[in-house]
Amino acid sequence: MRNVTKDNITDAFQGYMGKDTDPRLKEVLMSLTRHLHAFVKEVNLTHAEWEKGIEMLEWAGEISDKERHEMVLLSDLLGVSSLVDMVNTVPGGTSSSVLGPFHVSGAPPIPLGYDMKRHYQGNVLLATGVVRDMDGNPIEGAAIDIWQTAPNGLYSSQDEEQDTYSFHGIQTVGADGRYAFTTVKPVSYEVPTDGPGGALLDATGRHAWRPSHLHFIVKAQGYRTLVSEVFAADDPYLDQDAVFGVREDLVMHYEDMPAGTFPDQGFDLSGKVEGDWLRVQFDLTLVRETA
Amino acid sequence: MRNVTKDNITDAFQGYMGKDTDPRLKEVLMSLTRHLHAFVKEVNLTHAEWEKGIEMLEWAGEISDKERHEMVLLSDLLGVSSLVDMVNTVPGGTSSSVLGPFHVSGAPPIPLGYDMKRHYQGNVLLATGVVRDMDGNPIEGAAIDIWQTAPNGLYSSQDEEQDTYSFHGIQTVGADGRYAFTTVKPVSYEVPTDGPGGALLDATGRHAWRPSHLHFIVKAQGYRTLVSEVFAADDPYLDQDAVFGVREDLVMHYEDMPAGTFPDQGFDLSGKVEGDWLRVQFDLTLVRETA
Repeated sequence: MRNVTKDNITDAFQGYMGKDTDPRLKEVLMSLTRHLHAFVKEVNLTHAEWEKGIEMLEWAGEISDKERHEMVLLSDLLGVSSLVDMVNTVPGGTSSSVLGPFHVSGAPPIPLGYDMKRHYQGNVLLATGVVRDMDGNPIEGAAIDIWQTAPNGLYSSQDEEQDTYSFHGIQTVGADGRYAFTTVKPVSYEVPTDGPGGALLDATGRHAWRPSHLHFIVKAQGYRTLVSEVFAADDPYLDQDAVFGVREDLVMHYEDMPAGTFPDQGFDLSGKVEGDWLRVQFDLTLVRETA
Repeated sequence: MRNVTKDNITDAFQGYMGKDTDPRLKEVLMSLTRHLHAFVKEVNLTHAEWEKGIEMLEWAGEISDKERHEMVLLSDLLGVSSLVDMVNTVPGGTSSSVLGPFHVSGAPPIPLGYDMKRHYQGNVLLATGVVRDMDGNPIEGAAIDIWQTAPNGLYSSQDEEQDTYSFHGIQTVGADGRYAFTTVKPVSYEVPTDGPGGALLDATGRHAWRPSHLHFIVKAQGYRTLVSEVFAADDPYLDQDAVFGVREDLVMHYEDMPAGTFPDQGFDLSGKVEGDWLRVQFDLTLVRETA
């Protein structure tokens, strides 16, 4: 197209694509481009603003490496990552929520009733629940990959004091679908603020806090893998998670339990918890792959 | 907002922004986010597709440095850069077109009639024209920063054989607004294809060619700076410029001139051009800063 104008450039882009272009790639690129073009026209983006955007992306590139993924953080802070979770959530199944950059693959298996807290100090938290299908039946053999911050607010990958799989473990459920482990309550923390993500937060008067959460990935044969998080109903940042991860069905009440009431069997800590403790219970509902 | 959903996440993003956020920044970010969110919802973007997008951006970051700006190339290939030029073009003024990554600042002044071709081989091209305002009056003192490829298709910054300001120069016009220089006809060339820009072209069956063009930046006191390019009407890539830079008013006819007709005064080459030569004429219309 010789005379490209602001009215036909989106069509010109489409026209450039070859016949053999993968239809789904074409659909995604067309929609992306249509929306980027509409954005530029809607705000009459200036050259200086375009340059600022390029500068932010180049900065994100510079600051990123194998451990740090600033492009992911920008996507998170703009709500794009959470929206991808949402459009892939099936009603009736547990909501997806952001994976985040702190998952470590290859965590060791942990038995039912395991104490993830180990030598760390803090109130005991007992987490229990059942992995179910959409009809409410337990899913035998489902594996739950669990990870969270230590009491200092750091994940093992951020903290030289922790070993690689500290506060990480994979629990496989039996015929009753039940999982159970003890830990400490995760804490709220800030996302990294020394890159363009932080500059974005700063320029828009936003804080960097995420409400405390337990992460998990649940895998079971024949079901969609669920990546999600569970939040505590009393967290001060619940209404303003910097990365938009909170969903109604993921907010759980952590119950204060009086001294002397910890279960006397079935847990590593049975017989060892004398003071107050906390309990949280949540079931995880998986969606069949064919759904 | 506690229960963030795909229907309210765009509002949640807006709600997060502080009262003291710059109103223009707020407008730009709101529009960008609304369109990114609409894109994700429209195509039901999968996690795998989102990851691919992040991977492309991370690759662009890795391959970029002070000399190479892959984020700019991605913006160019998606038509975003050209659209920014278009929304900032005022009707009646010469159209803007992409700056591109090959401009070198600080080029030396060149006198009227200068030969930019110097020792390079190739048919002589004489380029002339007048810098005018919207009423057609010449603009005295306007400075035209000109650059182009050498006959091998490379800009000086890409080519060890050329000195820094090879095929670069700044000409300042007099009271008649007239500029004039000789050179060789620029050649078509390919944008870099060894990064994510190339992967995008490849996946969509697109070539990497740009039609040949003369670049220029025109500056004059009281007028908007014009960044643009002039194309040749016979270029085979004119209808499919990889970066969407072609505009109707920027396509010029290069006239074949018979031997012995080169002007006999007023040019470095006067008296030295015996064979055929080429002529192109284009006026440059600037827009007042206040328009």
